[in-house]
Amino acid sequence: MALYFPKHSAAFTKAIEAIRGRPVAVLGHVRPDGDCIGSQVAVARVLRELGFDAVCYNHHRVPSNCASFVGDTPFFVDEDGVDSSRVAISVDCADRKRLGPVLQEAYPEVYLNIDHHISNSLYAEHNIIEGTASATGEILGGIFLDNDLTVDEVTAQALYVGIATDTGQFRFASTTRDTFEICCHLMERGADPAAAAMELYERESPAKLALLQRFLASFRYLCDGRACVGIIDKEAWAATGATKEDTEGLVDYARSIEGVEIGVLLEEMDGTMKGSFRAKDPVHRVDQLAIQFNGGGHACAAGFNPESTLDEFYPRLVDALETHFASLKETSQ
Amino acid sequence: MALYFPKHSAAFTKAIEAIRGRPVAVLGHVRPDGDCIGSQVAVARVLRELGFDAVCYNHHRVPSNCASFVGDTPFFVDEDGVDSSRVAISVDCADRKRLGPVLQEAYPEVYLNIDHHISNSLYAEHNIIEGTASATGEILGGIFLDNDLTVDEVTAQALYVGIATDTGQFRFASTTRDTFEICCHLMERGADPAAAAMELYERESPAKLALLQRFLASFRYLCDGRACVGIIDKEAWAATGATKEDTEGLVDYARSIEGVEIGVLLEEMDGTMKGSFRAKDPVHRVDQLAIQFNGGGHACAAGFNPESTLDEFYPRLVDALETHFASLKETSQ
Repeated sequence: MALYFPKHSAAFTKAIEAIRGRPVAVLGHVRPDGDCIGSQVAVARVLRELGFDAVCYNHHRVPSNCASFVGDTPFFVDEDGVDSSRVAISVDCADRKRLGPVLQEAYPEVYLNIDHHISNSLYAEHNIIEGTASATGEILGGIFLDNDLTVDEVTAQALYVGIATDTGQFRFASTTRDTFEICCHLMERGADPAAAAMELYERESPAKLALLQRFLASFRYLCDGRACVGIIDKEAWAATGATKEDTEGLVDYARSIEGVEIGVLLEEMDGTMKGSFRAKDPVHRVDQLAIQFNGGGHACAAGFNPESTLDEFYPRLVDALETHFASLKETSQ
Repeated sequence: MALYFPKHSAAFTKAIEAIRGRPVAVLGHVRPDGDCIGSQVAVARVLRELGFDAVCYNHHRVPSNCASFVGDTPFFVDEDGVDSSRVAISVDCADRKRLGPVLQEAYPEVYLNIDHHISNSLYAEHNIIEGTASATGEILGGIFLDNDLTVDEVTAQALYVGIATDTGQFRFASTTRDTFEICCHLMERGADPAAAAMELYERESPAKLALLQRFLASFRYLCDGRACVGIIDKEAWAATGATKEDTEGLVDYARSIEGVEIGVLLEEMDGTMKGSFRAKDPVHRVDQLAIQFNGGGHACAAGFNPESTLDEFYPRLVDALETHFASLKETSQ
C-alpha cells in the first residue's frame, strides 16, 4: 500500500521515539473547533496506546457540539492548572500565540507542531506541516495509517470529525481523493458519519436559529447584487440571547446567493464592531479588503475589526466594495 | 480488487448486451433531484461510450442547480416529444408512476430499473435494486467500476453529485465505507467536490433565503420543546416570490434544534395545505403520524396532505403530537 505522508510519517515516529517514557501535553488552539478537538483526542489516544501518559489542554472549553467526541480522553482547560513539565505537542495551531496566554507561558518550547495551515510559523523543535491536507485530522489519519498505529473507535471518529468539519462536509477545494480514502479507512475503524452529523448539526440552540432569522432579515444587496451584507446589531443580541459562537456559519448564507460574489457579516458589539468577508472566488482577495479595516485572512475568507461604530463604518464598507468591483472591472478589460 | 456489487454488475452487463444496437431512453422521476439527474447522465454517457444511441427524458426540467452537470449529454423534457420506440431504462425511480404521465404512457414496459429505494416496486423486466446503497449514483459507480467501463469526467461528476446530494453531504446513515471509496475512485476520474458544491449550494435565490427567514420567524415549540413547527403561510409566498421548490430543506432547520425530536413544516396553499415531518430517531415513526393526515413516508421522513385549511388543521396537529409523545412515554415505562 502506498503511504499517505511518507516523510511526515517517518518524522512523527522519530519524534515520538525520542520522548518515549516522558509525559506529554497535547495542546490545541483558542476557541477550538472540530479539527482541533478531534486532532487532540487522536494524538493523546494514540500516544496513550503506545504507553505514554498523555493529556490534552485547551485555553477554552470543548464546544458543546464536540463534547461527545472526547470520550474518556483526559481533557482539561488551562484555568484548572497545567503540568508544565510535560513535553508539549500542538495540533492545528498555526502560531504559538493561538495556544492562548496560559499555555504559551507554561510551554515556552513546543516539541512537536502538527498542522495543515500553510501559514504555520514553524515555532516548534519539530514541525510536521502539510498545507495540502484538508484538515490536521487528515494528516494524523494518514500518519497513523502509514505507521500502522492503533486507531480505536473514539480516535477514528475524532479524526473523521476533524476532516468533516474542516472540509465543510467535503465541500471545500481542499477535499481530495486521499481525503475520501482516509475517511474510508476511518470508517473501517469505527467512524460513524451519521452519528457525527447528529452531534455536529442537530443540536442547534433556538437562540442560534433566531439569530440566523434576524441575520437573513437584515440582508442588503450592494454593487448590483454582487455583494450581500447581513448585520447582527445590538438589538439582535439582546432579542435572541445568542452568544458570539452562534454567529459561526452566518456569513456563508450571505455568500450562498446566486450572483453574490462576496458575502459580508457585520457584528455590532458594545461601542465597536467586527466583520467577516467570504468570497466565492479567490480573485477577490478579501484579505486585501480586510487589511483596510484592521483585519486580514485568506483570499476567500477574512475578518476585520474597524475601530468604528456600525453607523460610521457602513458607508466606508459600501465605498470599499464599490471601489473593489470597479477596479476588478478595469483589470479585466 | 473486490467488486462492489458483483451480482448487480453481472446483471447490468447481461441486460445491456441483450439490447446492443438498439436506441435507449434513460428515464428519471418527476421533480428530479441530484441523484436522478446524475444517474441519468451517467447511464446515458456510459451507454453512448459503448456505441449506443442513448438519450435522457424527464417529465420536469433539470433543476437549475443541476443544469451544469448534464454537460453535452442529450437531455429532454417529455413535452418536447419522446421516441417511444427506444428501450426504456429507468434510474432512481421507485415506482412506474414516478415517471410522470407522459413517460408512463410512452413506455408501458420498462426494460431495466436501477434504484436504491428499498420500496421499489420491481416494475421492469430487469430490476437492479440495492437498498443498502446511499444513492443510485453509488450503485452505478460501483457497477461501472466493477465492469471497468469508461467513466469520463462528466460521468464521474454526475455520479458524485448523486451521492453527495442523496447522503446530505455524507451526513445520513446510508453513508458507508464503500460510499467514500467510490467517491475516491470518482475523483480519480475527474469528480470535483468543490465545483459540485458551488453549483449545488452557492446559487440560492434571494427569494429562497427570504422564505427561510420567514420560516424561522414562524417557529412554534410544542410538547415541551420536543417538536418544532414552522409555517409558510399564503402571505409568505406572496411577500417573497418563492416557488414550491424553495421549501426544500426548510424542515431540516426545525428538526436541527437541540431537544427537538420532530420538526414540522406546514405549507399553506390556495384553500388547502401540505406538510412534512422529520424525526431525529426512527422510534417516532412519523410515517404513522402522517397516515392520520392523508400522507405517508418513512420512519424519519414523511409528508401529508390533510384536506383542510391551515387554521382548521393546526389544533389537530398539536393534538396528534401531544398524543404521540404521551404514548411514547407510556411505551417506554
